[in-house]
Amino acid sequence: MQSIDLNCDLGESFGAYTMGRDGEVIPFISSANVACGFHAGDPLVMAQTVQSCKRSGVAVGAHPGFPDLMGFGRRNIAVSPTEAKAYIQYQIGALQAFCTVQGVKLAHVKPHGALYNMAGKDIALARAICEGIAEIDKSLILLALSGSKMIDAAAEIGLPYAREIFADRAYEDDGSLVMRGKPGAMIHDEDTAIARVVRMATQGTVESVTGKTIPIAADSVCVHGDGEKALLFVQRIRSALEKNGVAVQPLAQLSKIGEKQ
Amino acid sequence: MQSIDLNCDLGESFGAYTMGRDGEVIPFISSANVACGFHAGDPLVMAQTVQSCKRSGVAVGAHPGFPDLMGFGRRNIAVSPTEAKAYIQYQIGALQAFCTVQGVKLAHVKPHGALYNMAGKDIALARAICEGIAEIDKSLILLALSGSKMIDAAAEIGLPYAREIFADRAYEDDGSLVMRGKPGAMIHDEDTAIARVVRMATQGTVESVTGKTIPIAADSVCVHGDGEKALLFVQRIRSALEKNGVAVQPLAQLSKIGEKQ
Amino acid sequence: MQSIDLNCDLGESFGAYTMGRDGEVIPFISSANVACGFHAGDPLVMAQTVQSCKRSGVAVGAHPGFPDLMGFGRRNIAVSPTEAKAYIQYQIGALQAFCTVQGVKLAHVKPHGALYNMAGKDIALARAICEGIAEIDKSLILLALSGSKMIDAAAEIGLPYAREIFADRAYEDDGSLVMRGKPGAMIHDEDTAIARVVRMATQGTVESVTGKTIPIAADSVCVHGDGEKALLFVQRIRSALEKNGVAVQPLAQLSKIGEKQ
Amino acid sequence: MQSIDLNCDLGESFGAYTMGRDGEVIPFISSANVACGFHAGDPLVMAQTVQSCKRSGVAVGAHPGFPDLMGFGRRNIAVSPTEAKAYIQYQIGALQAFCTVQGVKLAHVKPHGALYNMAGKDIALARAICEGIAEIDKSLILLALSGSKMIDAAAEIGLPYAREIFADRAYEDDGSLVMRGKPGAMIHDEDTAIARVVRMATQGTVESVTGKTIPIAADSVCVHGDGEKALLFVQRIRSALEKNGVAVQPLAQLSKIGEKQ
Repeated sequence: MQSIDLNCDLGESFGAYTMGRDGEVIPFISSANVACGFHAGDPLVMAQTVQSCKRSGVAVGAHPGFPDLMGFGRRNIAVSPTEAKAYIQYQIGALQAFCTVQGVKLAHVKPHGALYNMAGKDIALARAICEGIAEIDKSLILLALSGSKMIDAAAEIGLPYAREIFADRAYEDDGSLVMRGKPGAMIHDEDTAIARVVRMATQGTVESVTGKTIPIAADSVCVHGDGEKALLFVQRIRSALEKNGVAVQPLAQLSKIGEKQ
Repeated sequence: MQSIDLNCDLGESFGAYTMGRDGEVIPFISSANVACGFHAGDPLVMAQTVQSCKRSGVAVGAHPGFPDLMGFGRRNIAVSPTEAKAYIQYQIGALQAFCTVQGVKLAHVKPHGALYNMAGKDIALARAICEGIAEIDKSLILLALSGSKMIDAAAEIGLPYAREIFADRAYEDDGSLVMRGKPGAMIHDEDTAIARVVRMATQGTVESVTGKTIPIAADSVCVHGDGEKALLFVQRIRSALEKNGVAVQPLAQLSKIGEKQ
Repeated sequence: MQSIDLNCDLGESFGAYTMGRDGEVIPFISSANVACGFHAGDPLVMAQTVQSCKRSGVAVGAHPGFPDLMGFGRRNIAVSPTEAKAYIQYQIGALQAFCTVQGVKLAHVKPHGALYNMAGKDIALARAICEGIAEIDKSLILLALSGSKMIDAAAEIGLPYAREIFADRAYEDDGSLVMRGKPGAMIHDEDTAIARVVRMATQGTVESVTGKTIPIAADSVCVHGDGEKALLFVQRIRSALEKNGVAVQPLAQLSKIGEKQ
Repeated sequence: MQSIDLNCDLGESFGAYTMGRDGEVIPFISSANVACGFHAGDPLVMAQTVQSCKRSGVAVGAHPGFPDLMGFGRRNIAVSPTEAKAYIQYQIGALQAFCTVQGVKLAHVKPHGALYNMAGKDIALARAICEGIAEIDKSLILLALSGSKMIDAAAEIGLPYAREIFADRAYEDDGSLVMRGKPGAMIHDEDTAIARVVRMATQGTVESVTGKTIPIAADSVCVHGDGEKALLFVQRIRSALEKNGVAVQPLAQLSKIGEKQ
């Protein structure tokens, strides 16, 4: 039976500020990317989020980002690979503390926002991040954009990885994401988006923005839980996957990930 | 043979800001309290500090503080026990990441500044801190003011602890520190200060501010490395201890700590 | 004709985090206390908030708080009077920049949260804040708890002030607020709360928690815009005041404030 | 008589962290660029720095930077022009508060670090900064790299500007700075550096890195006060300028600046 992971960013609240509807999306996902206090999240939120994930059997991953709360980690910052590595390790460690407290094993690491995007295109940054993860625990799974430099870097050093796809984004002929702002970059129709996810999960292909059928490796689908519409969409994706014989499972249980180790 | 630990706050630099002369004081101490990014320190500084400690065989401890970089963690903040616990766990975890990278075991936890002082007098806060430490690793040693509520809380829950003394501070008849600002609170004469440390280490007593001989448990002496004078003083203390048959050893090797576990 | 000010905390969003329903409450208030980036708010939010206030004819005030975004400025921090003064001045200046850009005169200053509470009871802190305001502009109006040390300090140095009352809080016989947590501290019934506000505005008296009629000076009522219920309550208070012959006007237009200058 | 301004970054200390030897460099400079709390500086430091400048008759300018204390504002951050404008205005306002308190008029604005470099090459960012300054006070002088986009943007909107030169940097044939890292980018010999400054100040020309004589407009020389060597160098530059008939004067008194207004 085929399987795929549904991952969602959780624990993005901060102090008196609430973001996302974590409690409502948790029942439908298999993996959570938990913010670690740099771009979002704080120690109390992290403690509660790990506890909620444990209770619901959702795999916990770290979601380290740039030290830019004001920009929510979405703005490129010209950090050196050495800085990126130290930032990643700091945030992984911080989250591991709350995993230890709850008796949960940290499962994966997914860089956030601008760090995710920058490292997806910059092999030096990607290597620093993967080495940073491996130095802490070689069994941690890197979750990153399918076809990105981060996946290349993980493969290079033998770090387990999972390739992420997006339901609402178009792909270029080479498998990279069509940049936001370009015509056709976003898939606005929900039915189309869901059909694309099912196809990626079952056939390993997608129709590119130019209409070609291209191969795409899909271990995990990124979903959102920040509004009514997003929540309904998660349920629809999950339901469509299951109807098409694709089990929704955390990364650690996906056989393809296991094989790479 | 008698032994005592010499501990010093390290890793307090931040970004472009340098604080302390870590490289010069390391050869003379046995334990380092490493700042964890809340009141001082940053991920790069933490990585380098743990590496330096490893190279010199100095035991690494976490030095968690309030999230108050502007106040260097020295200002009381009315956090709840729940907040204090989460802050402590976050910071311990972050430092553990760098210990893991270096293959070093985190040895102890010494709360910093205002958190140290507040928890020394507030049993609820002290318990939250000790439980927070124990939930992560029951073998971590709490390093806190001799005779304080933090030591009481550690004893209550069976957390290993080490009792800290100060060379330059006077003690009340009940063993508590004479508050800064009160006449006689500080021991300004270096020879007197050193003689007091030797006596506390070898005899377990000290002369209180009123002239009485009082018992004091001394597992570790707090020293500073932030200036020429401080550096010379550390060397003099270490030399005086050794001349008087007291070995300078990290906390994990002190038999008295071991007995408590 | 009698008049009173309705003030509300605005501009508390930060980066990607939204707080409050500023656009919906603005039509009903006469003064806004705008967060200045320490406990809430950021430069973009401040720029937008001042612009919104200008458009609606709402008076703009600074709402400076402790540098504690994680605690939303609600936790006591043991700052010195000198620190408090510098923090206040920094934040007032930052907000004044956006007022200058919009051609709006900054009208008042209301310390936020824990700073408001601490300075309400600590005359040294209150004096530092009032002096800090006066050094920037002697015509700025301090908005603070009726009967508090901040009002005393403003009176001492000749700084204009406005005395704030709360619709949902009970008062002790001496006019101070009944501490949260004590029985009867909160007025939960909306009709009672509104009747109390009308009485304070029109008669200058209130029934204390023990049932006595006590005098209370009321220049401004604190209202909230952070939810459906809060928004409806603001409308009801405004409507009740107007029906009882009390005009809702910004502080600068209240004759009682003018007389003090 | 010819004249030029000597400007230095001051007020870069933060909390318990000291940076720079402000007190020692102040007697030799004519303008101070005061950090505003984003990349360096804090309210207490700003208050003290403005006071020191006033006492020594040094002109006070704002030195706004990116909100990146950990990176000291030296890392490029992909902010939008709207964000840059709001950040600049916030920081200018904050510093103006301390100027108002001291009865000093804010003289100029010099963006810091990565913001200075980015805006020097990006006309949209440069315009946002210049408009941000002009919206607050059209008489504020922009201090920016001679020949940069920031100077262009100031000229476009009629904002007074001053063109900054560097003693220790080589120039390309087009007047731009040779990028750090390229051979010959830095002028290491002090005598050469001083001779170049004198020539730029008196003749308005400099020898480019390829050996050509190129024109360069020089209203202000950037100097440093962060070490023994830097301090001696400032004294030597000032002395050399004065011996060659160039008066060291703040920007507001330089006739060339005045003419532009």
